[in-house]
Amino acid sequence: MTALRSYAAGVWQAPADDGAPLHDAVTGEEIARISSAGIDMRETLNYGRRVGGPPLRALTFHERALLLKQLALYLQEHRDELYVLSYRTGATLFDARFDVDGGIGVLFSYGSKGRRELPNDTVYVDGPVEPLGKGGTFVGQHIATPLRGVAVQINAFNFPVWGPLEKLAPAFLAGVPTLIKPASQTAYVTQRLVELIVDSGILPEGSLQLICGGAGDLLDHLGEQDLVSFTGSASTAQRLRTHPVIARHSVRFNAEADSLNLSVLGPDAGPDSAEFGLFVKQLVTEMTVKAGQKCTAIRRAFVPAERLDDVAEAVRERLAKIVIGDPSRPDVRMGALASLEQREEVRRSLKALMDAGSVLFGDPERVELVDADPERGAFVSPVLLRADDPGRAEPHEVEAFGPVSTLLPYTSTDQVVELAVRGAGSLVGSVVTGDAAFARDVVLGVAPWHGRLLVLDAENAKESTGHGSPLPMLVHGGPGRAGGGEEMGGIRGVLHHMQRTAVQASPTVLSAVTNRWVNGAPYGDTEVHPFRKSLAQLRVGDTVVAGPRTVTRADIDHFAEFTGDTFYAHTIEEAAAANPFFEGIVAHGYLVVSLAAGLFVDPDPGPVLANYGLENLRFLAPVKPGDELTVTLTAVQITPRVDADYGEVRWNADVVNHDGELAARYDVLTLVAKEATA
Amino acid sequence: MTALRSYAAGVWQAPADDGAPLHDAVTGEEIARISSAGIDMRETLNYGRRVGGPPLRALTFHERALLLKQLALYLQEHRDELYVLSYRTGATLFDARFDVDGGIGVLFSYGSKGRRELPNDTVYVDGPVEPLGKGGTFVGQHIATPLRGVAVQINAFNFPVWGPLEKLAPAFLAGVPTLIKPASQTAYVTQRLVELIVDSGILPEGSLQLICGGAGDLLDHLGEQDLVSFTGSASTAQRLRTHPVIARHSVRFNAEADSLNLSVLGPDAGPDSAEFGLFVKQLVTEMTVKAGQKCTAIRRAFVPAERLDDVAEAVRERLAKIVIGDPSRPDVRMGALASLEQREEVRRSLKALMDAGSVLFGDPERVELVDADPERGAFVSPVLLRADDPGRAEPHEVEAFGPVSTLLPYTSTDQVVELAVRGAGSLVGSVVTGDAAFARDVVLGVAPWHGRLLVLDAENAKESTGHGSPLPMLVHGGPGRAGGGEEMGGIRGVLHHMQRTAVQASPTVLSAVTNRWVNGAPYGDTEVHPFRKSLAQLRVGDTVVAGPRTVTRADIDHFAEFTGDTFYAHTIEEAAAANPFFEGIVAHGYLVVSLAAGLFVDPDPGPVLANYGLENLRFLAPVKPGDELTVTLTAVQITPRVDADYGEVRWNADVVNHDGELAARYDVLTLVAKEATA
Repeated sequence: MTALRSYAAGVWQAPADDGAPLHDAVTGEEIARISSAGIDMRETLNYGRRVGGPPLRALTFHERALLLKQLALYLQEHRDELYVLSYRTGATLFDARFDVDGGIGVLFSYGSKGRRELPNDTVYVDGPVEPLGKGGTFVGQHIATPLRGVAVQINAFNFPVWGPLEKLAPAFLAGVPTLIKPASQTAYVTQRLVELIVDSGILPEGSLQLICGGAGDLLDHLGEQDLVSFTGSASTAQRLRTHPVIARHSVRFNAEADSLNLSVLGPDAGPDSAEFGLFVKQLVTEMTVKAGQKCTAIRRAFVPAERLDDVAEAVRERLAKIVIGDPSRPDVRMGALASLEQREEVRRSLKALMDAGSVLFGDPERVELVDADPERGAFVSPVLLRADDPGRAEPHEVEAFGPVSTLLPYTSTDQVVELAVRGAGSLVGSVVTGDAAFARDVVLGVAPWHGRLLVLDAENAKESTGHGSPLPMLVHGGPGRAGGGEEMGGIRGVLHHMQRTAVQASPTVLSAVTNRWVNGAPYGDTEVHPFRKSLAQLRVGDTVVAGPRTVTRADIDHFAEFTGDTFYAHTIEEAAAANPFFEGIVAHGYLVVSLAAGLFVDPDPGPVLANYGLENLRFLAPVKPGDELTVTLTAVQITPRVDADYGEVRWNADVVNHDGELAARYDVLTLVAKEATA
Repeated sequence: MTALRSYAAGVWQAPADDGAPLHDAVTGEEIARISSAGIDMRETLNYGRRVGGPPLRALTFHERALLLKQLALYLQEHRDELYVLSYRTGATLFDARFDVDGGIGVLFSYGSKGRRELPNDTVYVDGPVEPLGKGGTFVGQHIATPLRGVAVQINAFNFPVWGPLEKLAPAFLAGVPTLIKPASQTAYVTQRLVELIVDSGILPEGSLQLICGGAGDLLDHLGEQDLVSFTGSASTAQRLRTHPVIARHSVRFNAEADSLNLSVLGPDAGPDSAEFGLFVKQLVTEMTVKAGQKCTAIRRAFVPAERLDDVAEAVRERLAKIVIGDPSRPDVRMGALASLEQREEVRRSLKALMDAGSVLFGDPERVELVDADPERGAFVSPVLLRADDPGRAEPHEVEAFGPVSTLLPYTSTDQVVELAVRGAGSLVGSVVTGDAAFARDVVLGVAPWHGRLLVLDAENAKESTGHGSPLPMLVHGGPGRAGGGEEMGGIRGVLHHMQRTAVQASPTVLSAVTNRWVNGAPYGDTEVHPFRKSLAQLRVGDTVVAGPRTVTRADIDHFAEFTGDTFYAHTIEEAAAANPFFEGIVAHGYLVVSLAAGLFVDPDPGPVLANYGLENLRFLAPVKPGDELTVTLTAVQITPRVDADYGEVRWNADVVNHDGELAARYDVLTLVAKEATA
């Protein structure tokens, strides 16, 4: 039998011993052997830091994002073989798509967000410049820079593709090399995934390593720049979190542990309502997809007491139609658990749950199968329980990591919130209701215990991605029992791999550090109009000072008439004077910015292609008839696109009156060509 | 001797036993006794959760912020007695001001930021709405809600006022009750601070508790909604972090540990340069303020090798002028360490440091004092060391928590960065240089190991707040050895006390949850023009639809001429057509928003007072001559001020053309009166 290889320190390494057998979840056949014996963990970490880190950090966020997109496209071409391999884990094609396409989707999402929301640079600027002195010579700014270590990613068995990819994408985008340690049971799928990635040649060498088998002394070699992202059981999370090396070096530790996620049916949802149907359908889906082996699956289904029988009946009916068996068959809806050991674990947990509730559907010991052997394959029936006393401990504390959920009755909003929080921290919860007020009360009541909350209703049912699906743009993780971690959430997940540092400096130095012009820093070139410069020529700090232009009462009157904006502050002297902020007629803010553009624009065709927006516009002092305006426009940030012949330039516009008072300040957003065309 | 009392479960409680003595750092006299014997820790936590939490969470962010401001004003009135008490800790008046006024400054800062940067509401909205489906019926939004537990704040002995206040302010603003556990040595100052706060009656009962003495079994009763913020030694941080209850419940744990902070003199700074003088002066200040008992003090001073003698001489000269003794004397620059035990600790660490370096100034065993007894008071001389081999381990690993620093030579930028990171994580570093490129290289080189970096130069020297001062608007904390934590940083520190939750819902439900109108949600009142409504009458979702107005070529020509904005895309047909984004002449973006205002404005005097800005303006489709524009203006967010008779209203403006295509979308920011005036 072949042994799974690790990709460590730049080479594919076979284990130094025979390893432990991995079995097909469906047939029980041995698939491969796994062991990390012989791998030098210290050297592997060092290789990531030494070989993987520097070239990765030399890329800009946009360059890294583009590689993630390319990787997504590459894997999309090769996903079929991952589907086929996934059958052996017990997954149906639907399950495999959830895992494989879901993972590829995370790469696409980060590939796109990285270019839209991050600078085309290596330093991330976090939040606004903070003035630290009245004179403007001393300012603060937070920046984020990539940690210089390795992101050790310890994944769970249930998502051998999505798991590694959802951790890899934000780490890679941040500029931190990844070391994947998959759970043994399904590591052959992850190994093939990593082979595909390595073969693609898309990611820089050293930015991705793989250890198949035990972690050995890996954690003993962690340092203060490494981080550990763990997905798995709460008990393992606790053990890792208190590892002396992790504690000693304050190694960033992020955990996702499976939790007792809830779903609540609203009191408004009668048996004939759309929401009733959605609740039932979603519950059955969550019980059966991946045979319930999802850390986000619904374990506690709260139903208004008077509807418990109706819901029970509807769920039972649907469960009865679920075809179970060989997951490679298209008619099979639910496959096997990942291993016989997992089945034993589920049966153990079910025993505890059955102390507090009765079984409404399914027999933990028996299941009818299509094309599969119930002895050799890790099959188990979906089991629906009912706990008529919702105050019992078990449903809130015991998780059967399989196709198992418990129905619980509730009688008031307060009660369901109280019961909900007894899960002591969950990854996700859902509320199925057409009543926005009920949704608000439950969401705000249980939010402190949840990383994600879905409100499902008739309005969004068609587009809803469902209770169980973490999305790359939203955070995934939960407090307390769910591990206290947070992953993804768009750029938030990238920043978890970076160190935030407050930089205090003069505007001059801060501009040099961040590569953005900061108010108060000296201007660059003021001779050549910056609209005459292509992206290749333009420098941060390049400036045009233009004006003055006098704003007359006639201008204001005319603008009011022309635009139709006859707001009293621009047209009626007395009413304007009665306004607490003005002493009389003031110019329209829109007039001020329009005149400012008239001053700073260089009109001839050239590299500036378009003004696509404004940001942070504040009118800081009223502009009165007779005021003379001068505008200073300075290039703040230059963002050439990695995949187009133009890019974005952000400008700071300062409009001052003849007393030097700042009347308006804002960011002008333009598109500018990379090269000047003849 | 009086025993310090704890303020727990709503009453001042004296200890049940005699307690341990606390001694005056200067005279050795017994000041008080301390013990937490008899305090029911579990009940204290429960009291915070049960009594403190609900009324605090019922307040809006602005109401909480206003209370912090009121508390700051109250403490400002009573600070003199805190100064006097501080002398007994060994602090000079300057030191005491650093502690007391610094703490009050944090309250002022949060009092102000809370009202400027947070909504006048109880739910924080984090980031933009994320579209999750193409049809717009399913969207995501992150919210933050206060944790429902208690913020257990374990403070260090060196800042008995600033320490508790910098932790209290963000917790309080978040809506989380505080439990202060001061370090015993200086707990009498904190106890008096808490007495003042309780006597002021400003904070809601239960939002602040105090435990003087040992923590007892406090941590055993923590739950998943509590958090622990610790400031102190790295070894205690490690012990707390691995506490089984903290690990089991994923209790949020934040640590600030003192670290081997560095300061670097730039190679540009010759002995006559301003920066040379600034470096020397700052080093001496950091060594002597609070007798060097600052977790942010400079321990490693890196100097270009060829300047080492010059710097040594200049620092020695300044140190020789430091008057040491009774800290209540105005001529004394440096007082005592907090205790004789601390002095023993400093001497022990000094022994280790002296293995790697020679003493340039000071005798660890002897010091000349003014009006003080060297046997009874915990005095120690400032000690300046020099380590000619900067590669030795000790200077990077051993911290003497007193007036002790080591000079280290370096010869290149790469080398100083390498040496710097051997501290394995610091709270703060500083670079003193007039060379912006050197500053950039060092800052970006060491940023992953630092929570804060100061670049000091001639430009900002007058306004600089200095190496050792954490500021409330900037993060305080550092990776690795510094504890891996983060405090303050403005609103960031507030969010550390809240749970971030991704909410997925229809726009209708999301609007109900966040109390903000979300694009795609139904409009509210469209009958009465919303400009006719005061804040008291206006509701989120109230809308005016106005138009159409046709934009003619004549309008564009006229606008170009009137404003002077003759940019080619608005004036030259061929040039506009050659632009990659346009097919011919397009209207100015400024014209579009001006005409939109002409449509949506209701001109008569009324509750709308001013348009103070625009945000997030994006021009999404070109507006061509002949296009008919319609604008829809909807109230998104309503923010009545707590201390004025008006507030802010944020509106969403959607400008669409006659094909229903979105031409521009932006936020209009207005000030609106709370009540309609006759």
